[in-house]
Amino acid sequence: MEFEKELAAKIARTDEIVQKFLPAESGAQKKIMEAVNYSVTAGGKRLRPLLLSEMSILFGGTEYAEQKQDIIRPFMAAIEMIHTYSLVHDDLPAMDNDRYRRGKLTTHTVYGEAMGILAGDALLNLAFETAFLAFEAAQGMQDYENIALALRILGREAGIYGMIGGQTIDIEDTGREISEERLQKIYELKTGALLKASMQAGAALACARADELETVGSCALAAGLAFQIQDDILDVTGTQEELGKPVHSDERNQKTTYVTLYGLEGAMEKAKEAAKAAIGFYDSLGRENGFLRELLLWLIIRKK
Amino acid sequence: MEFEKELAAKIARTDEIVQKFLPAESGAQKKIMEAVNYSVTAGGKRLRPLLLSEMSILFGGTEYAEQKQDIIRPFMAAIEMIHTYSLVHDDLPAMDNDRYRRGKLTTHTVYGEAMGILAGDALLNLAFETAFLAFEAAQGMQDYENIALALRILGREAGIYGMIGGQTIDIEDTGREISEERLQKIYELKTGALLKASMQAGAALACARADELETVGSCALAAGLAFQIQDDILDVTGTQEELGKPVHSDERNQKTTYVTLYGLEGAMEKAKEAAKAAIGFYDSLGRENGFLRELLLWLIIRKK
Repeated sequence: MEFEKELAAKIARTDEIVQKFLPAESGAQKKIMEAVNYSVTAGGKRLRPLLLSEMSILFGGTEYAEQKQDIIRPFMAAIEMIHTYSLVHDDLPAMDNDRYRRGKLTTHTVYGEAMGILAGDALLNLAFETAFLAFEAAQGMQDYENIALALRILGREAGIYGMIGGQTIDIEDTGREISEERLQKIYELKTGALLKASMQAGAALACARADELETVGSCALAAGLAFQIQDDILDVTGTQEELGKPVHSDERNQKTTYVTLYGLEGAMEKAKEAAKAAIGFYDSLGRENGFLRELLLWLIIRKK
Repeated sequence: MEFEKELAAKIARTDEIVQKFLPAESGAQKKIMEAVNYSVTAGGKRLRPLLLSEMSILFGGTEYAEQKQDIIRPFMAAIEMIHTYSLVHDDLPAMDNDRYRRGKLTTHTVYGEAMGILAGDALLNLAFETAFLAFEAAQGMQDYENIALALRILGREAGIYGMIGGQTIDIEDTGREISEERLQKIYELKTGALLKASMQAGAALACARADELETVGSCALAAGLAFQIQDDILDVTGTQEELGKPVHSDERNQKTTYVTLYGLEGAMEKAKEAAKAAIGFYDSLGRENGFLRELLLWLIIRKK
């Protein structure tokens, strides 16, 4: 209960930070700014920026994170913008063709398809623009190097070797039967990559060593995998009321999932393995951030 | 004649540089890499990366540009990727719905609409990823600061306050009668912004001062405007053979252009004014790069 309260407070704070970096809706480009802001404020738990921020605390301590907030916060907003743009484009008619997300009309449904494409583009661009604001607060070589590394992490994990790569494979495989190896790859890229970007960028901004970044990345990928397998399970065992979205959609869409590959029991076993691996990597860092550990557990072993 | 020969050689060299930064077509993400490479290699004169490179020579000299080539080249590739992604998304069915560009099938026509969206996203992301490679070659505070500034220029001019903003206004205004003020804004943002990004980024990488960057920006916007007005004129006076694309398309699409606003003579006058302003800004820099001056003139006073 204590954790849930702390989580709610931290989510609210993270949301405030993200919103501060949204563009003012004015001038000749008002329309695209409205569409951008609509997309970002349409909900979401801000988990990625929260993970980024908590990781910077794990490696730098609370005081350091406070002192470097003008460097860390632009990256928090940036990762949420990248996440949002991927949803906006995913919802487009040529992609998943979704009219609703989290109970609200999708961006292209409100603003039209052309504006949906442009709003996604704008958000991806704005993500990097926002992250570049960190340079304004840089006060020496160490800060520049940390920012450069965080930028490279962001770029790599969001791109063709990361998230976009995952979306591509997913689209190619639709309607095909696929192996566990390939399914794991999709999950790692589609969900894991941005979690990895969030966690590694936060660590990098707090001067984590290369081997530590490696471990953080493994933790993120395992957590992402556990999260996705849990998603497969809930689609079978959950109810629409609990989840706030239609269930049994994988069956309807004839999707290969961990449940179709291993059955419900088997999938639960696989989820447990991935969760154990994620926490194992986290603990092996030998650092203390009680809230972050609980957050990871909550993320992995969620009931909805 | 001498200039045209030098231009052809420099374009070929620029093309080689851009191609070096394209992804290898392998692995699970092979498809998206193919689509990305198809888009970038489907033609184009590489004018933006060439302008970037020539600007770095104008401010730093040939030797400096040579010495810093591992910093400058990633930005050359990046600007061409941004330009290409904007074309890929512009051609989509929900946007201009073009099946051909420069005589070749558009990306979404070859790879499908979903892959067209993703290839554009991938290119924008890859542009920043590529620019970040410059950090690898950074060798001190000055390099980091130059790279940071060039990144900020790139992000700003490509985004909602630049190119994407221009596309949005253009889409909003389709079928509407618009004022010269608004038309100039569209031209400045849609075409001028990326020229500005190219020229300013090249100058910034070669340590140009803030007031010099300002002048470079003004030169780029005036050049972009002259280029666009010339485009309006050629659409009326040119032939399909000369231009390699259908003429009188503005009339068919009922577009407001400088010709519809001022007539042919008036538009020619406006183009001349903008061209004069562009060269005026360039000359006021008081620096020597004979090829770049000729390149700007060629760009502005083109016959096709």
